[in-house]
Amino acid sequence: MSHHELTAEETVVENLGVRKIDSPLAGRMAAQKVERRFLSDDDRVLVNPLITGDNPISKISFERAGPRREIYFDPSKVKAAIVTCGGLCPGINSVVRAVVLELHYIYGVRNIVGARFGFQGFIPDYGHPFVDLDASFIAGTHGRGGSLLGISRGHQDPTRIVDTLEMMNINILFTIGGDGTMRGALAIKKELDNRGLKLAVVGIPKTIDNDIRFAQSTFGFATAVEAAAKVIHGAHNEAISAEGGIGLVKLMGRHSGFVAATATLAHPDVNFCLIPEADFDMEGEHGFLNALEKRIMERDHAVIVVAEGAGQKYFEDQHYGLDASGNIRLGDIGIFLKEKIEGHFAKQDIPIDLKYIDPSYTIRSLPANATDRIYCSFLGQQAAHAAMAGKTGIMVTMWHDQMVYVPMKLSARKRRQVDTRGRLWHAVLETTGQMTMINPGAG
Amino acid sequence: MSHHELTAEETVVENLGVRKIDSPLAGRMAAQKVERRFLSDDDRVLVNPLITGDNPISKISFERAGPRREIYFDPSKVKAAIVTCGGLCPGINSVVRAVVLELHYIYGVRNIVGARFGFQGFIPDYGHPFVDLDASFIAGTHGRGGSLLGISRGHQDPTRIVDTLEMMNINILFTIGGDGTMRGALAIKKELDNRGLKLAVVGIPKTIDNDIRFAQSTFGFATAVEAAAKVIHGAHNEAISAEGGIGLVKLMGRHSGFVAATATLAHPDVNFCLIPEADFDMEGEHGFLNALEKRIMERDHAVIVVAEGAGQKYFEDQHYGLDASGNIRLGDIGIFLKEKIEGHFAKQDIPIDLKYIDPSYTIRSLPANATDRIYCSFLGQQAAHAAMAGKTGIMVTMWHDQMVYVPMKLSARKRRQVDTRGRLWHAVLETTGQMTMINPGAG
Amino acid sequence: MSHHELTAEETVVENLGVRKIDSPLAGRMAAQKVERRFLSDDDRVLVNPLITGDNPISKISFERAGPRREIYFDPSKVKAAIVTCGGLCPGINSVVRAVVLELHYIYGVRNIVGARFGFQGFIPDYGHPFVDLDASFIAGTHGRGGSLLGISRGHQDPTRIVDTLEMMNINILFTIGGDGTMRGALAIKKELDNRGLKLAVVGIPKTIDNDIRFAQSTFGFATAVEAAAKVIHGAHNEAISAEGGIGLVKLMGRHSGFVAATATLAHPDVNFCLIPEADFDMEGEHGFLNALEKRIMERDHAVIVVAEGAGQKYFEDQHYGLDASGNIRLGDIGIFLKEKIEGHFAKQDIPIDLKYIDPSYTIRSLPANATDRIYCSFLGQQAAHAAMAGKTGIMVTMWHDQMVYVPMKLSARKRRQVDTRGRLWHAVLETTGQMTMINPGAG
Amino acid sequence: MSHHELTAEETVVENLGVRKIDSPLAGRMAAQKVERRFLSDDDRVLVNPLITGDNPISKISFERAGPRREIYFDPSKVKAAIVTCGGLCPGINSVVRAVVLELHYIYGVRNIVGARFGFQGFIPDYGHPFVDLDASFIAGTHGRGGSLLGISRGHQDPTRIVDTLEMMNINILFTIGGDGTMRGALAIKKELDNRGLKLAVVGIPKTIDNDIRFAQSTFGFATAVEAAAKVIHGAHNEAISAEGGIGLVKLMGRHSGFVAATATLAHPDVNFCLIPEADFDMEGEHGFLNALEKRIMERDHAVIVVAEGAGQKYFEDQHYGLDASGNIRLGDIGIFLKEKIEGHFAKQDIPIDLKYIDPSYTIRSLPANATDRIYCSFLGQQAAHAAMAGKTGIMVTMWHDQMVYVPMKLSARKRRQVDTRGRLWHAVLETTGQMTMINPGAG
Repeated sequence: MSHHELTAEETVVENLGVRKIDSPLAGRMAAQKVERRFLSDDDRVLVNPLITGDNPISKISFERAGPRREIYFDPSKVKAAIVTCGGLCPGINSVVRAVVLELHYIYGVRNIVGARFGFQGFIPDYGHPFVDLDASFIAGTHGRGGSLLGISRGHQDPTRIVDTLEMMNINILFTIGGDGTMRGALAIKKELDNRGLKLAVVGIPKTIDNDIRFAQSTFGFATAVEAAAKVIHGAHNEAISAEGGIGLVKLMGRHSGFVAATATLAHPDVNFCLIPEADFDMEGEHGFLNALEKRIMERDHAVIVVAEGAGQKYFEDQHYGLDASGNIRLGDIGIFLKEKIEGHFAKQDIPIDLKYIDPSYTIRSLPANATDRIYCSFLGQQAAHAAMAGKTGIMVTMWHDQMVYVPMKLSARKRRQVDTRGRLWHAVLETTGQMTMINPGAG
Repeated sequence: MSHHELTAEETVVENLGVRKIDSPLAGRMAAQKVERRFLSDDDRVLVNPLITGDNPISKISFERAGPRREIYFDPSKVKAAIVTCGGLCPGINSVVRAVVLELHYIYGVRNIVGARFGFQGFIPDYGHPFVDLDASFIAGTHGRGGSLLGISRGHQDPTRIVDTLEMMNINILFTIGGDGTMRGALAIKKELDNRGLKLAVVGIPKTIDNDIRFAQSTFGFATAVEAAAKVIHGAHNEAISAEGGIGLVKLMGRHSGFVAATATLAHPDVNFCLIPEADFDMEGEHGFLNALEKRIMERDHAVIVVAEGAGQKYFEDQHYGLDASGNIRLGDIGIFLKEKIEGHFAKQDIPIDLKYIDPSYTIRSLPANATDRIYCSFLGQQAAHAAMAGKTGIMVTMWHDQMVYVPMKLSARKRRQVDTRGRLWHAVLETTGQMTMINPGAG
Repeated sequence: MSHHELTAEETVVENLGVRKIDSPLAGRMAAQKVERRFLSDDDRVLVNPLITGDNPISKISFERAGPRREIYFDPSKVKAAIVTCGGLCPGINSVVRAVVLELHYIYGVRNIVGARFGFQGFIPDYGHPFVDLDASFIAGTHGRGGSLLGISRGHQDPTRIVDTLEMMNINILFTIGGDGTMRGALAIKKELDNRGLKLAVVGIPKTIDNDIRFAQSTFGFATAVEAAAKVIHGAHNEAISAEGGIGLVKLMGRHSGFVAATATLAHPDVNFCLIPEADFDMEGEHGFLNALEKRIMERDHAVIVVAEGAGQKYFEDQHYGLDASGNIRLGDIGIFLKEKIEGHFAKQDIPIDLKYIDPSYTIRSLPANATDRIYCSFLGQQAAHAAMAGKTGIMVTMWHDQMVYVPMKLSARKRRQVDTRGRLWHAVLETTGQMTMINPGAG
Repeated sequence: MSHHELTAEETVVENLGVRKIDSPLAGRMAAQKVERRFLSDDDRVLVNPLITGDNPISKISFERAGPRREIYFDPSKVKAAIVTCGGLCPGINSVVRAVVLELHYIYGVRNIVGARFGFQGFIPDYGHPFVDLDASFIAGTHGRGGSLLGISRGHQDPTRIVDTLEMMNINILFTIGGDGTMRGALAIKKELDNRGLKLAVVGIPKTIDNDIRFAQSTFGFATAVEAAAKVIHGAHNEAISAEGGIGLVKLMGRHSGFVAATATLAHPDVNFCLIPEADFDMEGEHGFLNALEKRIMERDHAVIVVAEGAGQKYFEDQHYGLDASGNIRLGDIGIFLKEKIEGHFAKQDIPIDLKYIDPSYTIRSLPANATDRIYCSFLGQQAAHAAMAGKTGIMVTMWHDQMVYVPMKLSARKRRQVDTRGRLWHAVLETTGQMTMINPGAG
């Protein structure tokens, strides 16, 4: 979480131009006889409100999200497109819904389309027709899991995407996706800039791994943790029910162990939590297998939670890893651990009963819980405000409990990870009681 | 469901001897100032209440479960043991709890022990100490998944089990388990008979597959179906979110497709439900793969539910099946289908995105829902009544909405299966719209 | 449950006429290449499969539900109407959905309408337009609580209803409702008979109280019990958290205590369960208030579950009851108990903290759980089969685990109630430990 | 949320004295071979990280929560007490559990007691024995709703409480409660100061209303909102199912409408959300009743959510309010609204069907969901760190996503309320479409 390297320059939000149109919110609020605080681009929140003693405070700050009194686009003429990319995550439909509701009912925008199956939707070759995002589409979205627009992974040519945007006279593009999607959005923005097109590109970060830099947490995370905790509870039930019972649960987290660590805290019976940020040795006196053996000898059962990106060093170095040639398994730490554990205990002739659980799809496809649904609404609303104000190249996030507009390029630079010297990870170490499983000289 | 072959003789419940002790229920009820109907061994329910026209009614019947006015064992002297075997199923602890509550509070039995890890608990070599099943044990059982006594699979020598029963002066043995457990219980009973020991053996059938003959449904089934339906819903969300999205869910059911078929009815979006009772061809014009291809071409997504015991013919005959040599995969219809489907569409160059979900352990380890918890209570109470009355070699089941005592040997003979010409399966066919996927001459 | 008084005559299902049209199911099944067992009107299930010793078996039986090979109505010409009446119950939309799916997709019926707000929908004065029940209506029904058609209580003039049915050329009327609805349906049928109209009237019993005679259980009951058990758990949490904590939960059950009794079994911490079938005194040495006082003095907290129809004698006799004149409170046993309890303990100067919970609407408005959704599907399907076969004046129920067609008039005669000498109630007495709270000579 | 009035002085955390004992965390971490960041009292977070343009930044800050390298109390000698006060809230047991786990397992404290039924537990007259909070107590706490220690409302004499603390040699007092509890804790602290006793008083704010100043959100709030949203969904189902259907839901919120407003966002079908912070008129052209009538005439159904503290002006002024003399109803806005609405529509002769739902106890008694359980763990851990470091007179809260120690006296000064010009309330106004219901000149 060192943000020292940020410069004030980098946090500046790009605007497409001068805003001259009165926001319809003012009129709408007058009709409802309510008041609302508009925000100006000068309203900001410090990137780092932490201080130590009398040390100087860094004034580096992010622009606060919110409605602007004047907007850039004429609601009656503007056309917006929404695209959802990557893997599933609880809440995608809720974000789409919130963007559309805000544009349609609050700003009076009538032209909103959805691209189908991620960026493929902008490439004519795929033949996916656009979807009209109107009231009837919205009616069916509440509380639905998955993505009604459809998703896809993978890169698409930004020039062809911009061709389509241009041809369709789209003025605003909302991208809902993770790292790759934001890199895609930035490539699209670059192409737009090259062509001198005044199109707003606004991103809402989507990652079930919760690993977006400058995003305090991402939508779907609360739902994922709740569901993962239930799976861990089941693994615990399996473990205590068998002699030498071992419940092994693989959770999401390719580069960051937030889901694994947080779900571990939700259930008091995890004995080992393995995440990408905390290196561990498999073999050797202080390695994981010996620690597990000790646990089994003492307590007869164990629950292990592993993030999918943990222990990747075992797949880089073929001498350590599986000698399998199959690509499918390469890097699958869950299967790898399962086999290592079974092999270890077979060698020791200690009976175990290992149950391996990989709940990924059942979690990703869940509808968002109330906490996430509400968060999705806020994200969608703030994204709509940003776009109508002509802001571009930004993502909407929560930072120190405030909603902000952060230039996408800042986030794309690196991922948020679990701080192994911080509160979250130490709560995990306290609940599991696990040691650092590194052999001397092996780290 | 043809019960024609049953003889009256076979349905007779064996009693250890004359019952001479007044049931404490009478006194307890007097103290509570309530009345209760005691049942006699003459109270029975017809095995088959279905009739057609004026055809004669078969008088073959089962003995009704319930408290007897006189009992066989002296509650102050009797010692009972409970054992849980096989795989997990929601409700095991609830059954144990109900047996103990009934014996302890209603009959006043003070010696109740639990064997740990299935029949292993009776074999001294394993070194599992027995657990006292008293009020404090019970306090922690409500709403808990798994088995607090522990389970194990596999056969144990009945003579050694009886040695332990004899040595410990156990008079009643409750066995909670499936087919194998009941065969084990019958072997124990045979050994008890050989030794002339008056020990009551009472079984409560446990199978998440719901495949016990003469059991209308088994405990845990409602919970399993509810959970399976949620998993199917997730698979549907995954399927509609991707181009060529295919959700493939493997559910419990080694020989009977009740879980797969019933869960299919709970969710309206299953397109193919494959169960052991309904043969299907993989390849060929009318085979499953072609039917799936048709569905994908027309609707772009599909949800498939497969019972683990479906399509086993592909593993018997190596010419049809995988050419893989690995034992692990042999017979895993889920993985087999996944690979067949991916291979088929790759060959056709049709893009699909298949998500394979195997929720077995997360379902088995769930706590029982209210419906099942109540059912477990009834099963446990009736088992206690049977045992105290000195009935042996029987299992407690629900049959035509009545609780009955059925000689275990009747059930061990064959499994209950889905009637492919009956109401359940045809409701499945109606909801999925699937055809019989058999090539002419291939059946 | 004494069915002795039934005559064979009374169980006869009325048919509108000879069935001459081949059921489209045969063709559809041929297309799907599947076989299905058709049932004949001769296929029946015994009303009472219970026997004692060699006593003769009563051959009184109900007609089994199921598709008939020949049907009465021409699917291409028939017009069906569905009406939902009374209060909410989980699963109403699922039943409507199942009827429509079966008629539309399986029989090919294209004219299906829904009456809005119960029988009001047939009375032009109310001005409720009919709803077309087509695929798009159905798409929005799955998993929805409430009634999308709308409900209402109260009687409507059968001659005016039949006027509308006649004017609209409706041939089939499905009524989903309770006692009152079935009496209404019978009145409609009588009027139809008077006019010589060949219109099939088929009922699906709906009552969250589960009090329909000859219905083993009604749809929504499993969901209601599950939800009620959670409410009881909350009441227990409130009770143990306060000194003299008393959790008082009023549950559905105007004349029958099935919900209260069954939910009590689902949660082990109820101390008093009060139902209409079990009389109790409030005051006096053996009355409820003294029993509660004893419990509080010994254990400091208590949980009470009361069915809304319990203790109605206190409202018949003004000397016992409240002296209030307001109609609202009259007969509200929950409020009455609350005040009686608070008065009693105030008089004794014993501090209590009573939390009164009346969850009725939150339970009634729930979507059906998987168990109930599946049951609703079966009910709807069998209702469709009955109607297409020209059966009339019947309701579809489950009886001894078989689906049957029962003449409505049999059910309307009296309600199903909890047998206070049977298994359910005695399981309640065992779990609560409560005594019969009647003073000598006071019963 | 104007924090301008705060002075640096006021934010200073009081310490009992110099810390000279090495924290056992260091040794424990060495044993686990892990590193952790200790925090110093100089580590702080700005109270207000929001800035506008070049305006100066206020350096007023709160002390960050976390473990200190040196602690004040000797773990082997210290004795801690925990008390839970006020009404129920999801998560109380989880906080108690976390405090005990941290003290017991991490710091090695062996003397921890729980006071029963709030501050009553310290007053000998009540005769409540203290509870030993050890591993066996903890074993039963996970996932349990309610308060296992028991709660009570109301003031107790601080001198008598301190008498007990002194007599029992208690060094640390953890108070879990709301406003009143914190005022009680401050009174206790004052008495301790008077007697010169070195006892640490550490509070964890508990309020389901989420109205604690300088607390971004309180534990149990996420659970309450999730549950409230389900109740609203049920009310919606009731409303759409009846002609003139009105679902009226009263939610928690005596002075702040956070639960009502946030739950409204979780469900898209609320039409009116009434909270204490937003005044409204009942009668008159622009009043609530007319607005509701308009909605009913246009759409035939409505859902109303009202916080219990809304519209209290109607109870201050007897001319507007009920003329009832009973104290029970006074101020019950739910019942008041119900009667006003029914009266209004009766007068207009418009048929409505109002369902009034007050789910308070069923929500308060819930176990915490995963989000809240994790939050409770953090709160309990940080409270333990504060107490062991000898901090006193503080509460632990989350502020701008950081855990901090805030002097209790700051919070006791005033409540956090919904900002009616801010993001939350305007999202509510957008989703409901409701107007400000104030008659001209009536505000």
